[in-house]
Parts: sequence; structure tokens; C-alpha cells
Amino acid sequence: MTLPTLEATPIPGLVVLRLDLREDARGWFKENWQREKMVALGLPDFGPVQNNMSFNAKRGTTRGIHTEPWDKFVSVANGSAFGAWVDMRDGDSYGAVFTVELDPATAVFVPRGVGNSYQTLEDGVTYSYLVNEHWRPATPYPALDLADATVAIPWPIPLDEAEISEKDRTNPSLADAERMQPKKT
Amino acid sequence: MTLPTLEATPIPGLVVLRLDLREDARGWFKENWQREKMVALGLPDFGPVQNNMSFNAKRGTTRGIHTEPWDKFVSVANGSAFGAWVDMRDGDSYGAVFTVELDPATAVFVPRGVGNSYQTLEDGVTYSYLVNEHWRPATPYPALDLADATVAIPWPIPLDEAEISEKDRTNPSLADAERMQPKKT
Ligand SMILES: Cc1cn([C@H]2C[C@H](O)[C@@H](COP(=O)(O)OP(=O)(O)O[C@H]3OC[C@@H](O)[C@H](O)[C@H]3O)O2)c(=O)[nH]c1=O
Ligand SMILES: Cc1cn([C@H]2C[C@H](O)[C@@H](COP(=O)(O)OP(=O)(O)O[C@H]3OC[C@@H](O)[C@H](O)[C@H]3O)O2)c(=O)[nH]c1=O
Repeated sequence: MTLPTLEATPIPGLVVLRLDLREDARGWFKENWQREKMVALGLPDFGPVQNNMSFNAKRGTTRGIHTEPWDKFVSVANGSAFGAWVDMRDGDSYGAVFTVELDPATAVFVPRGVGNSYQTLEDGVTYSYLVNEHWRPATPYPALDLADATVAIPWPIPLDEAEISEKDRTNPSLADAERMQPKKT
Repeated sequence: MTLPTLEATPIPGLVVLRLDLREDARGWFKENWQREKMVALGLPDFGPVQNNMSFNAKRGTTRGIHTEPWDKFVSVANGSAFGAWVDMRDGDSYGAVFTVELDPATAVFVPRGVGNSYQTLEDGVTYSYLVNEHWRPATPYPALDLADATVAIPWPIPLDEAEISEKDRTNPSLADAERMQPKKT
């Protein structure tokens, strides 16, 4: 299996991984996350403790923008999605935006303090991610309005046609959203 | 989120988990693997280092029976599959078979030394699993014939209609297959 390649982005610590998909008559196989190889290439040894999956019935389903206080390794298990991230950490890159199309050959490492969101580009897409802290139901995580005019994410499907949760319809704008502490160095 | 329930099987250490799928208008969300909760319920703290996914274009695609020397936590990210396991560890349960239908609400912990296989029940199914040792390309893993007459797995789709890799067409029968060392206790 060919090593993945890692690409830096305008958001410090947010890394795009191009994975080797081994295709054959059955379909494909991928090492979605491989600790040893990816750490050797420069990915943090982030120590996942939880693997979440969300299934989205319809094209245009949009989730986010969620800024949990833990790192995430995200990808799709099938289909494709438009991924968008906003740096919510206080500092020079505060408010920086990055977007990329997620297909099975693309994964993204999202450092804590960066807002995470996606919109599915077809029906029946499962989004899968690894996180390095357990979810705490009692602690609501900071979030940002998907339609925020300052960050102005170019959603492929207009948000008024998108399936969005009740919760994600009332998230604050950038001006009112919580700023995250930058990582101590 | 409701805690998963764990079910023992005729294969010692092979555990079925019934997961809580949180359904809403978007689709569903699941904690596919959650270290803290699952270890508290009795799952081994197996320490995954790799997350693999295999996509299967057609219904009836069949992979196995593979007996790698590491533990696996398996599930489907979408769709459904028929999962089948054979105990290849020397000892009282040698040759024991267990099968269960894998849908997104079902996961299986497979201890090392147990042969792993599945057949997809619809088109476009992604199978996802976590393992606790890195794959070693130079070390071929032991395998067992999918059609072995002794273990006689009741495949829902006849194997002569199934998509199967070249490699999996030449695996040995139970009589000729390598016996695995049982776990030292
Ligand atoms: C398991 C594995 C495979 N590969 C490569 C080798 C091949 O080019 C390709 C597919 O490998 P196969 O051995 O044909 O995989 P498959 O038949 O799908 O079996 C896999 O999925 C079912 C599992 O039972 C089994 O553990 C695993 O080997 O991926 C990797 O690069 N890394 C891996 O970890
Ligand atoms: C994140 C999470 C959620 N849940 C429950 C709470 C709800 O009943 C259900 C769905 O939760 P939402 O907060 O609505 O999830 P969603 O909008 O899909 O956002 C999730 O996926 C996108 C990610 O950006 C985000 O981290 C994550 O919260 O699952 C859990 O039981 N465990 C969890 O880890």
C-alpha cells in the first residue's frame, strides 16, 4: 500500500490526507487511519478513544459548525461530501476557512478548536470520525452559524434546501461565537 | 445515548454489541466504538492502531475467511452484511461457527485466532474495522476456504454467484488450515 500524502492548509494543524484506495473487482480497500505510517509522516499521535459514524439519507444534509474541545480524524465511508472548517482559536489565523471535497480517498485531521462541518453531495453518505476524548453529554460544545456572513462558506447546495437539525439552526454568528483557547506550546 | 448491550456467543471472546442508533430527520448517529463505555461493559481494552474500510460494489461480495493474529472490532458503515466467524484456535471450541447479520446497529469484537468473513446483502456496503496491530504485508495471514464442507457456513447468496478475490478462491479446507495458538492465560 502506497503511503498517504499529507497537505498543509491555511488552518494551522489542519491536515488533508490523500489515501491509497486499493481497487479491485470487489470494490476498494483503504487503511483509513494507520497510526504508525501517519505519525511517521507527521500526523500527531492523537490517541483516538471513540469512533463515531453519522448516516445522511439525503443529498444536501448539512451538519455543523461544531467546535468540540478534542481532535478529530474525519472521512467518508462511502459517497462524497463537501467539508468546511473554520479556525475558532484566538490568534493570527482566527476566522480562517478551509474547504475540501471528501471522497473515500480523502481524510482530514482537525485539531481541537477548529469548527467542523460538512454537507453531503449525494444520498446515503456515511461520515466516520475518530476522536481522542469521550463525548460529554452534559457539556454543550461551542458552535457557529452555518450561514455566517463573515466566514461565508460556499455550500454547494443552498442551505434553505438542506436538511439541518433544529440545534444547528440557532448557532451564533462569528461575532457572538465563543473563541477557543489556542493550544499551549 | 443508551449503553450498548453485549452478547456472548459460542466462540469464547467473540462478542456481539447492539449499538444505540440515534435516528432523526437527517439519518442516524452512532458511537460505533466508545472505549470507556465498552470497557466498563466488559469489552477488552484492545487499543486499536489502524482503521480499515472495504467498499463492496455488489450484493453477494464475499471476503474471508481470514485469521490474522490481531483483534478486530467490526461493523458496517451503511447497508447490511452476513458476518461469519470460525474459531481457529487450538482447544475445546476449535471449529465453532457463529453467524450474525451486520447492520449499522450491530458490531462484533473478534479475538485474534478467530477466522473472519462476511458477505454483503445489498449493493454499495462499506465494512469498517479497527485492529490493534499494524498490517504486515510480508506476513501472509492464515485463511480458510469459504466453502469448507465441515464448517458449512450458510451463505445467503450461493458462492458461485458471489464476487470473491482470486486469493480467497484457493484457501485451504479446515483439515489443512493452520491452527492458531490459543491465548496464554
Ligand atoms: C488488510 C490490509 C490489506 N491491504 C491491501 C492489500 C491489498 O492490496 C488490498 C486488499 O487486501 P485483501 O487481503 O484482498 O483484503 P480483503 O480480502 O478485503 O480482506 C480484508 O478484509 C476482510 C478481513 O477479514 C481481513 O482482515 C482483511 O484482510 O489492501 C493493506 O494495504 N492494508 C491492510 O491492512
Ligand atoms: C457527538 C455525539 C452525539 N451523540 C448523540 C446526541 C444526539 O442524540 C445524537 C446526534 O448528536 P448531534 O449533536 O445532533 O450530532 P451532529 O449534529 O451529527 O454532530 C456530530 O457530527 C458532526 C461533527 O462535527 C460533530 O462533532 C458531532 O457533534 O447523537 C452521542 O451520543 N455521542 C456523541 O459523541
